[in-house]
Amino acid sequence: MAQIRVAFLGPAGSFSHEAALQLYGPSAAEFVPCVSFAVAFSAVQRKTAHCAVIPFENSTNGSVVQTLDLLADHGNLYSDIVVHDEHYLAVHHCLLAHKNAAVQQGPDSSYRSITKLYTHPQAWGQCEQFLSRYYKGVERQDVSSTSKAAEIVSRDATGQSAAIASRFAADHYGTSILEANIEDKHENTTRFLVLRNLESMRTDGAAGLPETDNNTMASHIEISPPSQKQKVLIAFTINHSSPGALADALLTFKTHGMNLTSINSRPSLVRAWQYIFFVECEAISHAHFDDVAEKMLQGLRNVTESCRNLGNWRDRLLAG
Amino acid sequence: MAQIRVAFLGPAGSFSHEAALQLYGPSAAEFVPCVSFAVAFSAVQRKTAHCAVIPFENSTNGSVVQTLDLLADHGNLYSDIVVHDEHYLAVHHCLLAHKNAAVQQGPDSSYRSITKLYTHPQAWGQCEQFLSRYYKGVERQDVSSTSKAAEIVSRDATGQSAAIASRFAADHYGTSILEANIEDKHENTTRFLVLRNLESMRTDGAAGLPETDNNTMASHIEISPPSQKQKVLIAFTINHSSPGALADALLTFKTHGMNLTSINSRPSLVRAWQYIFFVECEAISHAHFDDVAEKMLQGLRNVTESCRNLGNWRDRLLAG
Repeated sequence: MAQIRVAFLGPAGSFSHEAALQLYGPSAAEFVPCVSFAVAFSAVQRKTAHCAVIPFENSTNGSVVQTLDLLADHGNLYSDIVVHDEHYLAVHHCLLAHKNAAVQQGPDSSYRSITKLYTHPQAWGQCEQFLSRYYKGVERQDVSSTSKAAEIVSRDATGQSAAIASRFAADHYGTSILEANIEDKHENTTRFLVLRNLESMRTDGAAGLPETDNNTMASHIEISPPSQKQKVLIAFTINHSSPGALADALLTFKTHGMNLTSINSRPSLVRAWQYIFFVECEAISHAHFDDVAEKMLQGLRNVTESCRNLGNWRDRLLAG
Repeated sequence: MAQIRVAFLGPAGSFSHEAALQLYGPSAAEFVPCVSFAVAFSAVQRKTAHCAVIPFENSTNGSVVQTLDLLADHGNLYSDIVVHDEHYLAVHHCLLAHKNAAVQQGPDSSYRSITKLYTHPQAWGQCEQFLSRYYKGVERQDVSSTSKAAEIVSRDATGQSAAIASRFAADHYGTSILEANIEDKHENTTRFLVLRNLESMRTDGAAGLPETDNNTMASHIEISPPSQKQKVLIAFTINHSSPGALADALLTFKTHGMNLTSINSRPSLVRAWQYIFFVECEAISHAHFDDVAEKMLQGLRNVTESCRNLGNWRDRLLAG
């Protein structure tokens, strides 16, 4: 089979890279680092990548709003993008420094030499207990990704800078690990979505993306029976001047036997204080799933201003 | 009347400071800058401040998740805190420099003398069009707040540095305004909540916080008739293993004649992939509001795992 191209938020060594590798294995795919989520979305929309692996939510920090805003597709740029699968990745943060840095440990278990910390803004929040205990008042520099932070400190032999990033990034950039598992919640997990191009899925048929179930790297699938639950993601807007419109839309899911599992809202950017809602729901039974989902969408179209089916996929949580 | 103490996210000159001043006026209150939202919450809980003015959502950027996470009160630290009022503040960014700086305007409307820009990371994104047109390639230094940026340039008489901050910060630190309203979206607005201590409200009675309606600074209230709508904020968790539990909870609002106006979810931090939901709703009529709200809460307690009334207040949007 020809190599597939998998887009992810780079640089190399990112959590997205790790998730993509777990899903598709090192040999069957070419991994394409992207400078932003928008570039990864574009790659799938323009079919320069077969799929993109994009973080959707973290068990501690909640939703990734940049992903929601791209799925909202305010500019109508990603009309063919749908969610095809999901993947759960355990997120452990480590404190990294240059491999030769002579870091000096203080009496309180902090490394005294460190005067500047680098990481992605979301990671500060995930390591707040560790940071407030040992690195209170130390300068923090936001960077675009945890792997970028690892790369920066891999070039600073003074040992004055440290990065919060993964063991995967430490291996990738050859840094030392000063402390492992510094995250507040050790069960911290990020859920990634696999995005595909709906049109390619229709035309490629069997020549499309390999099922991740069959992939040797996806060992988490093999040890547990796969869940029978099927998830759907719907984005909709309502007429905000109509009282009860949101309740009516949400009631539609129940009417069609779908269980609401999560709700997110983001500014619609059409008018201030109006929102686009993202609802994930699941069917208890897999039987006639497509029929049920289609009828539910018809029902939703009657009570919403706009409504988009962002795809359906098998729940991977119970299989983890 | 004795001065009230109003906590806000500092330093002085911040958008929160501006919102607090608009609400309570310069003379009737003492304004207490806090280093974090958590410190402002604590001040209200411990009654060292009468109230706190806290950003809740921005019309472009969406919810302020730090505020939601404090309202979720995972550690049961803020059990007496309730929302008492809301306030909408237009967010405009300006380019500031030292008041005596001999800034030299170039032919393309940029100020040639400026070699370094300072602001909060979020503000770069809000002024991207202006910056990429006139200040492409100019060094950018992230700082912890826009008001901090204003303070930095107020001390640089060379005129080589400029800050992106509010007109309020420019006035506060006595800087020049080189350009006003440089933000990409001119209708950008932040909604603030006024938090109070429920116990103090019960015991203080008339000696408590002055009604902002009567305040001379709250001119936005005087020019428009106040809205009759009353808002309620409820936080609840559900039994995630019970299908339909979320739909049942949301249906309860409709059953009691409340219109859902916004829904947010944040990780419950009890178990991964379980959420605490924040629902704002409003009654169309003010009549018997307390009775209706109380009955709705009783209904919610029957279908939720936990449920907290985070307060009710008058909708200020239509009065703006």
